[in-house]
Amino acid sequence: MPVGTAASVKAVEQGVLEEVGAGGKGARIILANTYHLYLRPGHELVKRMGGVHRFMSWERPMLTDSGGFQVFSLSELRKVTSEGVEFRSHLDGSKHFFSPEHSIQVQIALGADIAMVFDECVETPASWERTRESMGLTHAWAWRSKDHFELHKESVPWFAALGGATQSLFGIVQGGMYVDLRKESAQRLVEMGLPGYAIGGLAVGEPREVTREMIARTLEWLPKDKPRYVMGVGYPDEIEEYAKMGVDMMDCVLPTRAGRHGLLFVREEPGGPVIRMNIKRKEYADDQRPIDETCSCMVCRRYSRAYLRHLFVAGEPLSLTLNSVHNLAFYLDTMERVRGELAVSKP
Amino acid sequence: MPVGTAASVKAVEQGVLEEVGAGGKGARIILANTYHLYLRPGHELVKRMGGVHRFMSWERPMLTDSGGFQVFSLSELRKVTSEGVEFRSHLDGSKHFFSPEHSIQVQIALGADIAMVFDECVETPASWERTRESMGLTHAWAWRSKDHFELHKESVPWFAALGGATQSLFGIVQGGMYVDLRKESAQRLVEMGLPGYAIGGLAVGEPREVTREMIARTLEWLPKDKPRYVMGVGYPDEIEEYAKMGVDMMDCVLPTRAGRHGLLFVREEPGGPVIRMNIKRKEYADDQRPIDETCSCMVCRRYSRAYLRHLFVAGEPLSLTLNSVHNLAFYLDTMERVRGELAVSKP
Repeated sequence: MPVGTAASVKAVEQGVLEEVGAGGKGARIILANTYHLYLRPGHELVKRMGGVHRFMSWERPMLTDSGGFQVFSLSELRKVTSEGVEFRSHLDGSKHFFSPEHSIQVQIALGADIAMVFDECVETPASWERTRESMGLTHAWAWRSKDHFELHKESVPWFAALGGATQSLFGIVQGGMYVDLRKESAQRLVEMGLPGYAIGGLAVGEPREVTREMIARTLEWLPKDKPRYVMGVGYPDEIEEYAKMGVDMMDCVLPTRAGRHGLLFVREEPGGPVIRMNIKRKEYADDQRPIDETCSCMVCRRYSRAYLRHLFVAGEPLSLTLNSVHNLAFYLDTMERVRGELAVSKP
Repeated sequence: MPVGTAASVKAVEQGVLEEVGAGGKGARIILANTYHLYLRPGHELVKRMGGVHRFMSWERPMLTDSGGFQVFSLSELRKVTSEGVEFRSHLDGSKHFFSPEHSIQVQIALGADIAMVFDECVETPASWERTRESMGLTHAWAWRSKDHFELHKESVPWFAALGGATQSLFGIVQGGMYVDLRKESAQRLVEMGLPGYAIGGLAVGEPREVTREMIARTLEWLPKDKPRYVMGVGYPDEIEEYAKMGVDMMDCVLPTRAGRHGLLFVREEPGGPVIRMNIKRKEYADDQRPIDETCSCMVCRRYSRAYLRHLFVAGEPLSLTLNSVHNLAFYLDTMERVRGELAVSKP
């Protein structure tokens, strides 16, 4: 899932997003951040505009996170109680309070297809005791999220227009880097009977082997017939690996954020190893080849490395767009290929 | 002509530029700035890449200015002699020298379809004496530009590929705000037998009636069967007015620059008065209408004022793109309508 933090996948127009990568099929689903939209333009405004789909003109599926991760990573002066989190906006320092009920209320107003329970993201590294305590809070908050969701799910902006369809509320497994806690968290969440489960709290600085281990061990406890979603990953080779381990959904800002910083993903051949190209390097100044000769995206079909380097060095806004579009195509192409390989390998 | 200063119409992808406005026909011709491309990435690099068309992947016509205006408006520590202009780069303070021969050499390396003679742009306001002296220098430089162009025009990057086609060198009428000098300048330039003529040194702070008067009086002395080009104008109602006075070509950064600052051009009805909409205004926060209900551009077909205001306020890069695309469509639609009206009114 490309990330559209503030209801825009940065520098990429929705019409392009519908066509870039995956053989021209584009992005199937995108993510928007509840924390950002709550602060600006405000969920009530988005609701008045008919929900986030209509607001940003995106008809395909969308997911909103719970705001938990952003509150813990972006905002200042957090105060966590069992009730919820008090925090200050990273935009203007104003004081806000998020509880499971608040998060769900905001997510219903936004009206994305998939909403997430409100969770606590424990600092890293954290002791077993601290992680277990935080996990307990996350489970209590998951139930409160579900209860509030069940009570209010029919107030989603497009409820009537879609003949009574509601959002799907996914749970989030926590448990830090402790296998026993991950197992306990997964089991407790599965008892809730939710339509999908995410694995949160990973890719927060731990070694990659640990991420892999936590995913592998947690997947054992999550039902195969429900979507299994690893939040906030990853590099192209990681998402391929995790998909092959059984992960159905992932989201990451990396293709667009790296693109904006001039970092492009390429392969020398389809399925070959991933190479990171820093487009500002002098060696590309005269290079008439496309970013990636195996890529069929609109950027690689039309523009040279020399031109893309020039745009980046000159600070041209088009640089943000073209780099992001190529990286999104790279990610979506990768997942399209992986889906094909998985379909072939299945009995 | 939309302006693509550094070989990019800011924030607008070339594929979009080919389709935006004028009933989907897009921009017929764009302009790039010689001064900027000379400094970065350098004209020799652009030449090695096959010229500016190939470098930026734009197959339709292009025009490069002479660099004169930018040297006089952007650079520091200028020293003007009859030989040329010594100046410091606005990028890094490095010292450079531009003469008519240099400008033409750079423009041949860039290889746009239309090149401009190197002219001095007099400060404004300027006395009759100062303006006449500057005009004399401009005429001497026009001849030197033409001589150098004739000697070297076959070294244009695409000379062989296009079967020996060369660029077209246009002259620039100066003469400040003095009708007698404008007349003298036009007559002197027409004697040079160039394939097109520009009127320069206008829209530099003088009242609009003066601009109109200078254009009207200068047009009398320029041949009707050659393109007549007013440089650096203007607001939508101005370009309509000047086109109806007989001007064939204009260029202006206004549609894209205003767009980047959140200023959008709209009309309540086709051909109606132009309204400037400041999209950041609070009143648009809840406004579900498109920017311009009479506009058929990709932005007005898909996005609301509320969404565009949100993108602008949130500093989203997509804001630059969508605002610029709408304004370009507005300008190109305006000129398409004016061409239709002129065709109908001709005998």
